[in-house]
Amino acid sequence: MTDRPGFQRAYSAQHKTQRANDLMEAARELATREGVRGVTLTAIAQHAGVHVSAVRRYYASREEILLLLAEEGYEDWSRAVAGRLTGRTGLTSAELARVLVATLVERPLLCDLFTHVTLSLEREVGYERVRDFKRAAGRAAGVVAQAIAATGTLGPVPAEEFVVAVIALTAPLWQAGHPGETVTRLYQEDPGTAHMGVDFEATLTWLLTALCDGLTGARNSLEVGGRQA
Amino acid sequence: MTDRPGFQRAYSAQHKTQRANDLMEAARELATREGVRGVTLTAIAQHAGVHVSAVRRYYASREEILLLLAEEGYEDWSRAVAGRLTGRTGLTSAELARVLVATLVERPLLCDLFTHVTLSLEREVGYERVRDFKRAAGRAAGVVAQAIAATGTLGPVPAEEFVVAVIALTAPLWQAGHPGETVTRLYQEDPGTAHMGVDFEATLTWLLTALCDGLTGARNSLEVGGRQA
Repeated sequence: MTDRPGFQRAYSAQHKTQRANDLMEAARELATREGVRGVTLTAIAQHAGVHVSAVRRYYASREEILLLLAEEGYEDWSRAVAGRLTGRTGLTSAELARVLVATLVERPLLCDLFTHVTLSLEREVGYERVRDFKRAAGRAAGVVAQAIAATGTLGPVPAEEFVVAVIALTAPLWQAGHPGETVTRLYQEDPGTAHMGVDFEATLTWLLTALCDGLTGARNSLEVGGRQA
Repeated sequence: MTDRPGFQRAYSAQHKTQRANDLMEAARELATREGVRGVTLTAIAQHAGVHVSAVRRYYASREEILLLLAEEGYEDWSRAVAGRLTGRTGLTSAELARVLVATLVERPLLCDLFTHVTLSLEREVGYERVRDFKRAAGRAAGVVAQAIAATGTLGPVPAEEFVVAVIALTAPLWQAGHPGETVTRLYQEDPGTAHMGVDFEATLTWLLTALCDGLTGARNSLEVGGRQA
């Protein structure tokens, strides 16, 4: 991290790259600590020890920064999935679901970002930025699908569509499983709604297992415990 | 609708109820025409032909109004599902999925609201408002689950969890299937991302069919066409 006292404008290309990286690092730490909501240009500036105008020199908006974080999150996630599935075969639906969910549970920022990307981030940044993100996300999803297909649990085409479902289910279940203060308090105090809380990990695992079962035509492989048809 | 010229403050309880209903009707029309994004207190005021201060006298925020629209949307949807499934038995996973998706396709505002409810609306209104919404949504989901269970396709417990999945999948797939201008243009112009577009109805139907298959242990009932495991 560059020295904060005696703040100097970064003139050389190398300094500029370093400054941009430092700001992204500040954004990354802020996002991990505060969630997507906590990532604002002002907060990044404060966290990086610079003036907000310095941040704007590198990034047009918080949406742009968040989309970059989503992009690196996708790439990091795809590497993790590939790493965990390499060389594994004969996985049941439940085992595959557990591996995928484990990689997602370790990446709360990415899970949080999934919803924001589709709802707002993709709509609020410039064309090239969106294009670069979509291409990166598409490549990452492809890596995940190939890793799944390589296990033999799903064929290549179902694996791709399964990845769409993994992301599509993770997005809202993560939000529902991490409610704000009011809903949290409601679940604690109101017997009429207490049962409505969502356990992100358990629900996602169970749903992905069932979905994978359905895609493979496997017999119902879900564990007994109130979930039999 | 009350006469707009010679605008009068609604003093009697009856007038107040009428005014509140008129404002919700304006919000409903606006939301249907413009989507969730178009629903602001100012736009509602304009559409209803009143001053924005008149709206604030009845509703604290746009979030409160949107949550009320979500509540009535849930109730309306549950009645539609119950109506379509009453008396039907022996439905395959695909037939059940098609019925549910048809009711959702007819309700784009509700589909749009699903994401906003969990991401922001539940977090930004007061305790009683959230509690009333959650109870109403819970009741509606229960009606849908019971209607599904009554067909015999799923047992009562899987039916409840299936409804969670229906809502959870609808939310992000609707957003992904109705992108903004930039992404729409990207899909048209960029061959590298053109394949990433999501057909809401087809994708949701296919995924719910597969999920229902998995929950029932049915053999893979998906139609041939590149989707075999």
